[in-house]
Amino acid sequence: MTSAPGHGFSAVEFEQRVTRAHALMLELKLDALVVTTPPNVRYFTGFASQFWESPTRPWFIVIPRDGPTRIAVVPEIGAPAFAAAGVEAVRSWPAPRPHDDGVSLLGQTLRELPRRFGRIGWEMGRESVIRMPLTDFDRVRDASAGLEMVDGSPALWRLRQVKSDAEIARIRFACGAASRAFERLIGRLAPGDDEWRASRLMRSALLDEGVDTTPFVAVISGRGGYPQIIAGPSERRLGDGDVLFIDTGATYDGYFCDFDRNYAIGTLDDAARRAHDVVWTATEAGLDAARPGATTSDVFRAMAAVLEAAGSRGLNVGRMGHGLGLQLTEPPSNMLGDETPLEPGMVLTVEPGMQFNDDRLIVHEENVVITDDGNELLTRRAPREMWRIG
Amino acid sequence: MTSAPGHGFSAVEFEQRVTRAHALMLELKLDALVVTTPPNVRYFTGFASQFWESPTRPWFIVIPRDGPTRIAVVPEIGAPAFAAAGVEAVRSWPAPRPHDDGVSLLGQTLRELPRRFGRIGWEMGRESVIRMPLTDFDRVRDASAGLEMVDGSPALWRLRQVKSDAEIARIRFACGAASRAFERLIGRLAPGDDEWRASRLMRSALLDEGVDTTPFVAVISGRGGYPQIIAGPSERRLGDGDVLFIDTGATYDGYFCDFDRNYAIGTLDDAARRAHDVVWTATEAGLDAARPGATTSDVFRAMAAVLEAAGSRGLNVGRMGHGLGLQLTEPPSNMLGDETPLEPGMVLTVEPGMQFNDDRLIVHEENVVITDDGNELLTRRAPREMWRIG
Repeated sequence: MTSAPGHGFSAVEFEQRVTRAHALMLELKLDALVVTTPPNVRYFTGFASQFWESPTRPWFIVIPRDGPTRIAVVPEIGAPAFAAAGVEAVRSWPAPRPHDDGVSLLGQTLRELPRRFGRIGWEMGRESVIRMPLTDFDRVRDASAGLEMVDGSPALWRLRQVKSDAEIARIRFACGAASRAFERLIGRLAPGDDEWRASRLMRSALLDEGVDTTPFVAVISGRGGYPQIIAGPSERRLGDGDVLFIDTGATYDGYFCDFDRNYAIGTLDDAARRAHDVVWTATEAGLDAARPGATTSDVFRAMAAVLEAAGSRGLNVGRMGHGLGLQLTEPPSNMLGDETPLEPGMVLTVEPGMQFNDDRLIVHEENVVITDDGNELLTRRAPREMWRIG
Repeated sequence: MTSAPGHGFSAVEFEQRVTRAHALMLELKLDALVVTTPPNVRYFTGFASQFWESPTRPWFIVIPRDGPTRIAVVPEIGAPAFAAAGVEAVRSWPAPRPHDDGVSLLGQTLRELPRRFGRIGWEMGRESVIRMPLTDFDRVRDASAGLEMVDGSPALWRLRQVKSDAEIARIRFACGAASRAFERLIGRLAPGDDEWRASRLMRSALLDEGVDTTPFVAVISGRGGYPQIIAGPSERRLGDGDVLFIDTGATYDGYFCDFDRNYAIGTLDDAARRAHDVVWTATEAGLDAARPGATTSDVFRAMAAVLEAAGSRGLNVGRMGHGLGLQLTEPPSNMLGDETPLEPGMVLTVEPGMQFNDDRLIVHEENVVITDDGNELLTRRAPREMWRIG
């Protein structure tokens, strides 16, 4: 494996994140942000725990608009980790305590905050979820003594959308590791393997290349293309004439890559070969379009023009790429109606696909970071000719 | 690897789940359940997708109290997968569509349901989250034409708490695979490895043994014991006198194991050796106590008696085990105040731990399924003497 950037961010990085959050909170008239989900808690504190896999305990980080203080309101079991991470104030309760799992402690914390706007922003809106029981959230809201609980997700997404150099280094490493893992598979996969075996081999190859986790490894195959890209792997065995699709989101230090590759098993029929070429060319157009000054819908249109010129019908994916970072997919979306201006530091997937022969699909995907004068490709570009197995 | 039970459940299994849900809905006066999260959607439909990793699109399964019909209200991209899974009614919209991502379609679906109680149960309560933006949930609630949206989580947890033979077979396989992976590590780990390397080796060993995914691999080490069990791995290197703790939740066909093992690196000091023996003995007591007729608090007390007799102070984990299945942790909890009667088919972790020498911990964990006359150990029992590396 090539040299990894290492785990964890500097105290200065967290200060910069909090400072940027303060500016957005002022603009959106928020006295504080409350975050409850793994990516947002990690973004503000660096807290990296697999305990999130358990739904038992809620965790709250409060970022007041005034001052540098981050307040962790967390189960006792986690208090030392937040203190060790340098979080300025840590309050805890003995969890699990089903009748009051942080509800009164969080409520008290919010009521004590300095008030200017009387509004607290939560993960309430687009592509966001509040990770606590709604019955408990309602209790916090009811005991808020006049505070208004509002949607803070526009602030959170704007904050996370532009990545720092340290964040980009992690995504670059994940993309590089996955690029090498995809190439390693060529020699390891064989006709007769089932999709689950391909999935296990891909996960192992990713780990060999130094990623931390492999939360997303979609493996789907079909004769001359695949019928869908969301359910799989299955126990279907690879046979001559199949196209195998693998899409992966592996993480390093919490940051995702997200891209796919296609493999021809034995013979590739002409329709699949042509579709692959069209989608490869559409990817080139998307990569050319992804630059400062353009918008996400410009990137969509550049790819759509190539697909339409080749006579492609649309896909039902609804978009052709999106942001990525601490999550596999993040706003914005490369789609009509999303007019997000591209800025240096934004990391995007470029992801065209086409349907052909009624119900066959071929989808491509690469990852880029927008730079001052264009973009940097973070993935190793897929070859124009599909890789061959067997 | 030993023979795996295979992926996917029979149509009869889903019918039985829905039938049991109907009975609970009648008891709790619900006209329907609406589920939005991966484990509950999978429980009712078998839908297995890694697309959940993306927060962009919500997914809704409605289980009306009347009749055998399950209604999937899902993004277009997923409609074929739900139809192929045999879900009786599939309604879809072109997602992402930020201004109306399923809100009006779900609202219409709920308003058309036969009404008896006027109450719809959601994942609103204990250890539950509604996986959609709260602003969108509020729009569904506001347009409900008199329907009351209430907490359906008691029905969902009671339903999932008792596992079928087919579910148990999957947990048994995951436990067996992880047991073998833990043993394989003995020959693969070496002093000087860092915790991240141990994590990658453990994940690879799990995959070699045939698990599907490795969402939870906590790796934590410390001299003569570890200071905490929730944050890690880190770049800390294993040295003589360390105890290495690895806790894993790997899945097969969606079902988790959840247990840990301890490894001594070189020399093991007397305090750690004694703590390990106390916790091993407490585990024995917990295993003896886990039988039909006992409660979860009985299991807790059996372990606590051993720990207290050995002079142990408590832990801040708050419980000594919990249910598991489609999630790493599920209700009930082995703790005082949780008086859940144990029934055949319940799968539990038995998980005592102790603190010693001020801030050192040793934690053990095994998984059992309650049987008619006691329990079956699903994990390969940890040895009384800690495994040695180097």
